Amino acid sequence: MDFSSKYLEKAVLEISGLPGIGRKTALRLALHLLRQEETAVEALSESLMDLKKKVKRCQSCGNLSDRERCEICENVKRDQSLVCVVEDIRDVMAIENTGQYKGVYQVIGALISPMDGVGPSDLNLQSLLTKVEEGQVQEVILALSGTMEGETTGFYIYKKLKDQGIKLSSIARGIAVGDQLEYTDELTLARSIQHRLPYEQSLQQNRS
Amino acid sequence: MDFSSKYLEKAVLEISGLPGIGRKTALRLALHLLRQEETAVEALSESLMDLKKKVKRCQSCGNLSDRERCEICENVKRDQSLVCVVEDIRDVMAIENTGQYKGVYQVIGALISPMDGVGPSDLNLQSLLTKVEEGQVQEVILALSGTMEGETTGFYIYKKLKDQGIKLSSIARGIAVGDQLEYTDELTLARSIQHRLPYEQSLQQNRS
Repeated sequence: MDFSSKYLEKAVLEISGLPGIGRKTALRLALHLLRQEETAVEALSESLMDLKKKVKRCQSCGNLSDRERCEICENVKRDQSLVCVVEDIRDVMAIENTGQYKGVYQVIGALISPMDGVGPSDLNLQSLLTKVEEGQVQEVILALSGTMEGETTGFYIYKKLKDQGIKLSSIARGIAVGDQLEYTDELTLARSIQHRLPYEQSLQQNRS
Repeated sequence: MDFSSKYLEKAVLEISGLPGIGRKTALRLALHLLRQEETAVEALSESLMDLKKKVKRCQSCGNLSDRERCEICENVKRDQSLVCVVEDIRDVMAIENTGQYKGVYQVIGALISPMDGVGPSDLNLQSLLTKVEEGQVQEVILALSGTMEGETTGFYIYKKLKDQGIKLSSIARGIAVGDQLEYTDELTLARSIQHRLPYEQSLQQNRS
């Protein structure tokens, strides 16, 4: 592409550096911004800088926050002895949206993946290990993706914590609500039979 | 979605204001930016402001430019008496990429579309009309989309210019190179038969 404006070219280059955005989409977005009011573009531009400059990681759990500790860790109503280990802030948001969880989180930020060069040392685990050593934690729930990387990471954390005298659990794997049995993969189906529940218990879950 | 950071929420809101980008994609982009170096985010943020503040419309043709007149209008090697009317700067880029056109452009910025509230007065046509009145133009080529809006706009411009004693032409409509005849729509096929060329002339076109 040959641009008639150096600034347009620079903007398209920068925008197309974002994941999933190609040159054509970047040009479309740049032309859209050119049609907007200057204040609107300024608001977007400033929000990106604020994002990078002002958003911190919570020192306690690794969640994104505007302060040293996030709202969930600061909240006295949350059970600080129950820690749910998740990969990403999006997982925190998903679990928070259910309104069912009253503990705190540990956002580890990545999953072990030798293919992508991510090893155990890249996980944000230290603050959790410290809490466990100090006896602040009673139960750790592993809520990681059902992928190979998620299972590997879960097993690594399990090995780290299994002799610390705390309860370790994993979120239930099984048939999703609304899923049809015949289209479920074999592994999930096999596991859901293996980890079957007393019927009364499954009724309670459906009702809650 | 419930955000743990106001700045993250603001950034997601701003990014999702862009066309074709929803909240989930905006969150993914924001998290991507958080993982980048501050200088990279700064470069993106500044390029957006530069885009809005420094990119102008060429006073002569309406093309985007960093100066009062764009490079094409300033270029003495281009035939200033041949003007190609296009909707958008992307059309200019597409035609420039062919390397076949040596005239200048008139970027009208929109197509007449009563449904979208775009009328004739919204077209950037005045500088072309002035040039025509001053006798600077010998031929105007209409290179607009083959849609209803494109045809309406073309006809409007044709009516404005038809008594000015200049040559008026339209880009050829027909079967695209590589297209299979059986999958071409009836209207295109009918027109391409109606506007058939002497065979020798079509050979020349294919060779150039």
